Amino acid sequence: MASNPAPDDSRFGLGRQVRLTGPLRLDCGVAFGPVDIAYETYGALNADRSNVILICHALTGDQYLASENPMTKKPGWWWRMVGQGKPVDPDRHFIVCANILGGCMGSSGPASIDPAMGAPWGMRFPVITIADMVRAQALLLDHLGVDRIRAVIGGSMGGMQALTWPTLFPGRVESAIVIASTARHSAQNIAFHEVGRQAIMADPRWRGGDYYADGDVPSSGLAVARMAAHITYLSEAGLTEKFGRRLQGRDAKTFGFDADFQVESYLRHQGLSFVERFDANSYLYITRAMDYYDLAEDHGGSLAGAFARTRARFCVVSFDTDWLYPTTESRVIVHALNAGGAEASFVELSSPFGHDAFLLEAPELNRVVDGFLRAGER
Amino acid sequence: MASNPAPDDSRFGLGRQVRLTGPLRLDCGVAFGPVDIAYETYGALNADRSNVILICHALTGDQYLASENPMTKKPGWWWRMVGQGKPVDPDRHFIVCANILGGCMGSSGPASIDPAMGAPWGMRFPVITIADMVRAQALLLDHLGVDRIRAVIGGSMGGMQALTWPTLFPGRVESAIVIASTARHSAQNIAFHEVGRQAIMADPRWRGGDYYADGDVPSSGLAVARMAAHITYLSEAGLTEKFGRRLQGRDAKTFGFDADFQVESYLRHQGLSFVERFDANSYLYITRAMDYYDLAEDHGGSLAGAFARTRARFCVVSFDTDWLYPTTESRVIVHALNAGGAEASFVELSSPFGHDAFLLEAPELNRVVDGFLRAGER
Repeated sequence: MASNPAPDDSRFGLGRQVRLTGPLRLDCGVAFGPVDIAYETYGALNADRSNVILICHALTGDQYLASENPMTKKPGWWWRMVGQGKPVDPDRHFIVCANILGGCMGSSGPASIDPAMGAPWGMRFPVITIADMVRAQALLLDHLGVDRIRAVIGGSMGGMQALTWPTLFPGRVESAIVIASTARHSAQNIAFHEVGRQAIMADPRWRGGDYYADGDVPSSGLAVARMAAHITYLSEAGLTEKFGRRLQGRDAKTFGFDADFQVESYLRHQGLSFVERFDANSYLYITRAMDYYDLAEDHGGSLAGAFARTRARFCVVSFDTDWLYPTTESRVIVHALNAGGAEASFVELSSPFGHDAFLLEAPELNRVVDGFLRAGER
Repeated sequence: MASNPAPDDSRFGLGRQVRLTGPLRLDCGVAFGPVDIAYETYGALNADRSNVILICHALTGDQYLASENPMTKKPGWWWRMVGQGKPVDPDRHFIVCANILGGCMGSSGPASIDPAMGAPWGMRFPVITIADMVRAQALLLDHLGVDRIRAVIGGSMGGMQALTWPTLFPGRVESAIVIASTARHSAQNIAFHEVGRQAIMADPRWRGGDYYADGDVPSSGLAVARMAAHITYLSEAGLTEKFGRRLQGRDAKTFGFDADFQVESYLRHQGLSFVERFDANSYLYITRAMDYYDLAEDHGGSLAGAFARTRARFCVVSFDTDWLYPTTESRVIVHALNAGGAEASFVELSSPFGHDAFLLEAPELNRVVDGFLRAGER
């Protein structure tokens, strides 16, 4: 799939990146700029610029949704959804996916250089919100000459962004697909993130976030954070089906503390491979943004009020075994959309895979997204 | 409530402790001895020694179930269940509760002295199982001159011990009350414990478990482990009711990384107060024992087979919001008891408090335990 280069793009090793003057007025009050945004596009903008699909990635995702990730050498994280013949199709759509503000794959974040200091931001980077991530994406779309979005799509934290887009830019969004997501972080959601943050900050190599100079990063703390979070991405039944109490490559318990059980080995691997590709400070900032997320709060406590100005169509999808953002949270969104007079469809899909289902083989999800997009294209 | 001293008890600062020769044949193959056991008793043994109730504590519990804990200065952890006029009553019962083998409140564990080395065991302590904990309790009862137990009672890991008692000593147990527990650790249960263990072992102060000499303990890792586990003890609804998204003593978000939300502050407190009273190596050993627990596995894969030799009566209690050991796990136990021909009653109680419900105000639980015990005393 060919990218569609914009004139002033430069390359910094990791795909396409643009420096935008801004400033971006952040929720914390800071006027932030310049704003670096790393992004990928797939397909071509059509003549009337009406075929734009913006995809928003989740906590640990990135802009490489449908092409090989240059760091991990793995296929794009949403290759099942995005590609030729898939629901989001570069033959029909101009697809944009940007690394979020606060991320660590080329967009401005704690690991990037503060121009005023000539050194990495670290914890001097401003605390950001989901709305700030959306505003940064809007800056990028301005830069790309894109005024209207046919659909903004995201799962998990990407769904928070997709849900927020029509509330911040009601005139720019025709439709939003919000998958396995929520309109606010619950106490339990916050609690799990807080465990991860405490694990990172307890790592003596974290050093208040100033670990970039010598590259001795807080990988132990970040790995523990990832392990704790990873459990929430899987269903209890899925874990039982995948691992149960099976032992790791041996016949009997070792009566020791090595990874006896397959599930232990799997989790350790998840932790270790994650630290190879992710920045610990970014993890702090992004989880903070998610914990701060409460769309109703931004609209006087009324979630319905958030959707009062938009005419976008919404498609809300949940998975029955997702206990991180369970179906009840999607229903809260749908009730508010209905109350706000927005056009909304909702489906709960069945999957054994819990929250992660949206990233995995889910033919029903593909059918739902395809049907919703084609209905809007007719 | 007066204790009932046995002749050769000695005091080591923390209540009653006895050194038993053993050796205890552990599941790992080690013949372990001598075995120190710290314990408390309440009430008096009656003339025919028929009024003994053994109470088994949970992962982070101890022998101070109904009297002030000398370390924390808090009331005993089960004062709501055990005391004058309560279902377990020192006026009627001789109540025994021992710190588990592997614990850190006076029983032999990684923090206690290996007599052969004259130094703390650390990670040279043998890996133990739930069955080993039960065998150590049986040693103590031998020492106390107690042959038969009217009832063995426990919640959570205590329930695992209560369930195991009649399978190891079918002639010694008249009844068992198994509360908020399970007959085996699931993949998800193991996963959460593995996160905790990795958090402890990632703490540079852990030093392979040899941190006793200078007292510089891996408190950061242990606090993170406690925080992660603590989330599993509470229900999502309970967390929402107790904390929701309420901020901690201020009107607005700080856009920083202090504990903005009450739930963050609460979790941090849980972690910090836990490390004051618990040994990190004990946490490793006890979680390992729980993860190894699969009662069916010890009986050729048949849980019903585990109960074939016992004539004990069983009372199984679950809580509807307990997602750590949900009602489905209690049903597995009850089905096996029925299949094994054991007398079993089962009740699922309603509570907003999740797994921790058995430690909190639960009048229904008290009624169930009282009724079950009195039926056996008639």
